[in-house]
Amino acid sequence: MAGNSFGNLFKVSTFGESHGEALGGVIDGCPAGIEIDLEAVQQELNRRKPGQSSIVTQRKEPDQVRLVSGIFEGKTTGTPIGFIIENTNQRSKDYSHIKDQYRPSHADKVYDEKYGFRDYRGGGRSSARETASRVVAGAIAKQFLAGIEIKAYVSSVGTLHLNKPYNELDLQNTENNPVRCPDAAMAETMEDYIKKIRKEGDTVGGVVSCVIKGVPSGLGEPVFDKLHAELGKAMLSINAVKGFEYGSGFAGAEMKGSEHNDLFNADGTTRSNFSGGIQGGISNGEDIYFRVAFKPVATIMQKQSTINKDGEQVEMQGKGRHDPCVVPRAVPIVEAMAALVLADNMLTKRSNKI
Amino acid sequence: MAGNSFGNLFKVSTFGESHGEALGGVIDGCPAGIEIDLEAVQQELNRRKPGQSSIVTQRKEPDQVRLVSGIFEGKTTGTPIGFIIENTNQRSKDYSHIKDQYRPSHADKVYDEKYGFRDYRGGGRSSARETASRVVAGAIAKQFLAGIEIKAYVSSVGTLHLNKPYNELDLQNTENNPVRCPDAAMAETMEDYIKKIRKEGDTVGGVVSCVIKGVPSGLGEPVFDKLHAELGKAMLSINAVKGFEYGSGFAGAEMKGSEHNDLFNADGTTRSNFSGGIQGGISNGEDIYFRVAFKPVATIMQKQSTINKDGEQVEMQGKGRHDPCVVPRAVPIVEAMAALVLADNMLTKRSNKI
Amino acid sequence: MAGNSFGNLFKVSTFGESHGEALGGVIDGCPAGIEIDLEAVQQELNRRKPGQSSIVTQRKEPDQVRLVSGIFEGKTTGTPIGFIIENTNQRSKDYSHIKDQYRPSHADKVYDEKYGFRDYRGGGRSSARETASRVVAGAIAKQFLAGIEIKAYVSSVGTLHLNKPYNELDLQNTENNPVRCPDAAMAETMEDYIKKIRKEGDTVGGVVSCVIKGVPSGLGEPVFDKLHAELGKAMLSINAVKGFEYGSGFAGAEMKGSEHNDLFNADGTTRSNFSGGIQGGISNGEDIYFRVAFKPVATIMQKQSTINKDGEQVEMQGKGRHDPCVVPRAVPIVEAMAALVLADNMLTKRSNKI
Amino acid sequence: MAGNSFGNLFKVSTFGESHGEALGGVIDGCPAGIEIDLEAVQQELNRRKPGQSSIVTQRKEPDQVRLVSGIFEGKTTGTPIGFIIENTNQRSKDYSHIKDQYRPSHADKVYDEKYGFRDYRGGGRSSARETASRVVAGAIAKQFLAGIEIKAYVSSVGTLHLNKPYNELDLQNTENNPVRCPDAAMAETMEDYIKKIRKEGDTVGGVVSCVIKGVPSGLGEPVFDKLHAELGKAMLSINAVKGFEYGSGFAGAEMKGSEHNDLFNADGTTRSNFSGGIQGGISNGEDIYFRVAFKPVATIMQKQSTINKDGEQVEMQGKGRHDPCVVPRAVPIVEAMAALVLADNMLTKRSNKI
Repeated sequence: MAGNSFGNLFKVSTFGESHGEALGGVIDGCPAGIEIDLEAVQQELNRRKPGQSSIVTQRKEPDQVRLVSGIFEGKTTGTPIGFIIENTNQRSKDYSHIKDQYRPSHADKVYDEKYGFRDYRGGGRSSARETASRVVAGAIAKQFLAGIEIKAYVSSVGTLHLNKPYNELDLQNTENNPVRCPDAAMAETMEDYIKKIRKEGDTVGGVVSCVIKGVPSGLGEPVFDKLHAELGKAMLSINAVKGFEYGSGFAGAEMKGSEHNDLFNADGTTRSNFSGGIQGGISNGEDIYFRVAFKPVATIMQKQSTINKDGEQVEMQGKGRHDPCVVPRAVPIVEAMAALVLADNMLTKRSNKI
Repeated sequence: MAGNSFGNLFKVSTFGESHGEALGGVIDGCPAGIEIDLEAVQQELNRRKPGQSSIVTQRKEPDQVRLVSGIFEGKTTGTPIGFIIENTNQRSKDYSHIKDQYRPSHADKVYDEKYGFRDYRGGGRSSARETASRVVAGAIAKQFLAGIEIKAYVSSVGTLHLNKPYNELDLQNTENNPVRCPDAAMAETMEDYIKKIRKEGDTVGGVVSCVIKGVPSGLGEPVFDKLHAELGKAMLSINAVKGFEYGSGFAGAEMKGSEHNDLFNADGTTRSNFSGGIQGGISNGEDIYFRVAFKPVATIMQKQSTINKDGEQVEMQGKGRHDPCVVPRAVPIVEAMAALVLADNMLTKRSNKI
Repeated sequence: MAGNSFGNLFKVSTFGESHGEALGGVIDGCPAGIEIDLEAVQQELNRRKPGQSSIVTQRKEPDQVRLVSGIFEGKTTGTPIGFIIENTNQRSKDYSHIKDQYRPSHADKVYDEKYGFRDYRGGGRSSARETASRVVAGAIAKQFLAGIEIKAYVSSVGTLHLNKPYNELDLQNTENNPVRCPDAAMAETMEDYIKKIRKEGDTVGGVVSCVIKGVPSGLGEPVFDKLHAELGKAMLSINAVKGFEYGSGFAGAEMKGSEHNDLFNADGTTRSNFSGGIQGGISNGEDIYFRVAFKPVATIMQKQSTINKDGEQVEMQGKGRHDPCVVPRAVPIVEAMAALVLADNMLTKRSNKI
Repeated sequence: MAGNSFGNLFKVSTFGESHGEALGGVIDGCPAGIEIDLEAVQQELNRRKPGQSSIVTQRKEPDQVRLVSGIFEGKTTGTPIGFIIENTNQRSKDYSHIKDQYRPSHADKVYDEKYGFRDYRGGGRSSARETASRVVAGAIAKQFLAGIEIKAYVSSVGTLHLNKPYNELDLQNTENNPVRCPDAAMAETMEDYIKKIRKEGDTVGGVVSCVIKGVPSGLGEPVFDKLHAELGKAMLSINAVKGFEYGSGFAGAEMKGSEHNDLFNADGTTRSNFSGGIQGGISNGEDIYFRVAFKPVATIMQKQSTINKDGEQVEMQGKGRHDPCVVPRAVPIVEAMAALVLADNMLTKRSNKI
């Protein structure tokens, strides 16, 4: 179980290193008969792409996806959807200095220990570039999930917090600014802060929030594969993620039952939604919402002390083109992973009853 | 994928409802040759058992486990380990009042929607009673993980927080008090608070922290099956869990890269450990630590308004024997799930290199 | 993947050794709402039981199954069905002589090589006793498959072949004789032959044929998980099986395309059925039929030369109570495994289309 | 489980239709550190390629494979190996006549029933063209299996049978003739027969035999995942296969135990090998051998009566470039699937003992 597949019934298996020939994957289990909007798939990929604004990495990657199977006359056929994104702008020489050095808080050293050696160019398989494949698969999943709306947005950058619940925000505004924060004033503050951090050669962490509307009741399995457990795993599998909470989250742990219980309205909806749309691991039809914490990017443009393969202390200076803050580009990735979880559970649900 | 199995190579499949005839499971993939201390397995189960102290539910459940296969002459044989825990003290009549009513923030209503009907006695499969099977499997996993130390403890009850890092605590003290908080003074405060909450007929949430020492480098797979993603899923699959964070967690999202990066010592260890012992999803040999947020138990001994199957508003009064705060009994469950994740990844790791 | 689970969506995980405390398993993924006839489950188990007639082993095993979860008020709930069969009549001392000896054509030696040691009592996990769990799971699967008729029967014993196609036989007669051959005359001849073989202290192989009627079109996946590939794996996983063929089988390899092609009638049915009800791995609604070859039981009541753990040549004399011919008791096992394959594919099929 | 993945620890997921843009796949779980001979991979693919001789289809397909990830500096890195084979010579218009017609003994009709519509060009996903991806994955698996020799060959074409056991043949001769029969005289007879069949516009079935030498003891799991059950599934998943037998096979079902038992030599090897190198589902170190029956190719160059989507009887004339007998080209596919099974079980075996 080398762990390059995600999902059971709607399953994606991905491949590709940062500086290899190509990235790509196979989506297996996508039901037949879905009309695929190829432009929309590319559009999702563009949202993730570097070089979109002054606050993200300036790498130029065309990131053009080719869907080479599983679609015929515009519709999915029920056979696997293979896709390929060629790598065209690798500056592999940028990385020759880390061939024998271990970057702090990167996976360089553990790769050598785990596999005996590593593709050191740009982080290899552990580069966030791998998430391009997830976004393609998620874009297909979204088209299967017609009627379900998945909206992620940046809610914190460093200590700057957007302290408003999602239902007091206009999430249509998320894409209107490079930070992907739906509150225009906060977005500007955050943008300024990220620019300052970049100038310092530093990086900063942040939080992506996500809300999902229109999920039918009954998704998720009640024991090990609770819907929020699968969402949690999906989010924690994204590069740089350190935490996940849904509904009331960590704040809920401070509450009393008499405050936290979501009482029913006569129509079966709930008055409050501390449950976050999931009860006992199963969706109840209310909005699902969760928060994902991202650590600061480990590559900084400052001198750092580190060690090389021989255990000698060396000085290292970050090179290459990196993001000062990862959360704006993480927004479409969070949505993609959420879409994959939901698509998989939509199919699983079909087996519940006779 | 009805989700009653956990793990791939070291896999447990469980069965059993709160008020059915028996609970149990199958552990498949436990390597041959492990000497099994049966007493230690029962001991773990006793740690989880109700009725241990005045601050947990007073239900009496003997919870005696029978291991009926896979062990011969005291050692695992490599064949599946079947186990059974008979249910002997079900007061099913306590639950007849909820046959047609939906308890707030329980899974009653979503079960009816998902499956068409439900075993309403004591929460059925969604009862925390199901975790007894996890504890048995985790106890076997712990014996496979000789040399690795997994220690969970209560770090918050409601708004009472034990604000000390794990390495300033003596975790040998955890089992010395009914709260399972290793700080004696805080434990007493917490215990008093839980008693007060119980008297009010209310419940309260809390946080379980966990630290794992002695994990070799190289556990975990770098993409979807990152070690912390699997730990996260494992924890989020426990009843009542709302959040998971490891290493720096949500606090790490507020930090700068220059603060957060874990610089190397000459011997390859790291000076700080914001990474929480995992880099790029792979263990690096440092301590793994994480926190798990539990919501307050939904069953309260107060009158609540709710609805019945016909959508009529009714008043409901909690009955039965319930925990006012779930975290003390959750401690061995957190450890069990961590053990299952590690055991599975120990086996997966054997496939890394030629 | 220690291989004690079968199926994906309708999955059974089994445990238990021949002379351990109990056998059993977990059926996970059985849809909710199936009315379960417990008597019919026990009845299937009785068909497999030893001691039914003079031509099978005279061991007495009550083989009483307890279904301990997943069924409520007579119907499946969608949660896992746990079941247990206590072992009550183990004469383990019958096996002390093989503790250090390797029986020819048994798994004794490979177990020692694979696992380092073995539970030598009665073949341990490799005993055909393990198939009792399969029969229970298959009996539940059959109840899910209402409308589909699975009928297996003995078509060969040694060189005695019933050379009639299934549609010239009255399969209602199968259970009327101890051989489970639907042709009364041939059944008698086979029975006499088996008695003769038993008197010689020898054993003999045979073939079980199976026909499945009423399978809807569209079961099976077109590439690796072809319906006949899953049936083949299921049958080859039964103890003592050496071969599997479906439809025209090995005889089909001698034919020309112009003879073998199944031409269509106007109503979409086919004039011939060399395809065996499966085309491109997918059921087409015609009868599915296949044949399964069983080798002679390895334990014979004659002196055989063999070796012990130390590689010394020793003489061995078969002891215990064994079948002279395995095929009569294999009939319900073949049906059970076929039912498991179909149940799993019935659920998989639900994901085919949007 | 749409069934486009094979294997658990050494797993390949494939994609691609006969007349789509490209075929390809992902190999996940290949251990790090294997030196990959890219030329050898292409060579295996060439063995499967059409147009190699006068007795196979004259389609020209360059079938050039690109390995785009998972290999660095000539060695596997432990990350997924993605590969792509572009489709360059599709004459899709050859297939417009079957858009609305169902070819006898093809999967056309069941695809429409299962998925609602189909990619009718060249059989789509059910084309044997899909096996190109299997051969690539198998070629990588072979390089992991250094020291294990897998040799398949044609042993029957129609009623022409090579009645010699594998150990009386010189399997080095297999590639010396277009039939891939290691007996030169029989190869010539078979070749003449295939040419005659082709001239008649007909096709014929055949049998591929395979022998595997050098397999260590202990591969395969004793219950559902017996080594021969996995080999059987692998073979039955190849297009046109109708049967599988290993060791004594169907002939073994006619034997007595006293004849069939493989007695041990003092060194632990066996005097005979009716077991086919596998006992109780576990390899014992002896040669593994098995036979695979292929039906005649369904597309014949003769007029056939069939039906169209509207259930009308129509006449159909085979077009396109097809094989008169599939077994010569099936030889590398059988080897590839055997290699995948062994590679997967080699990794599984690593979990057997503590």
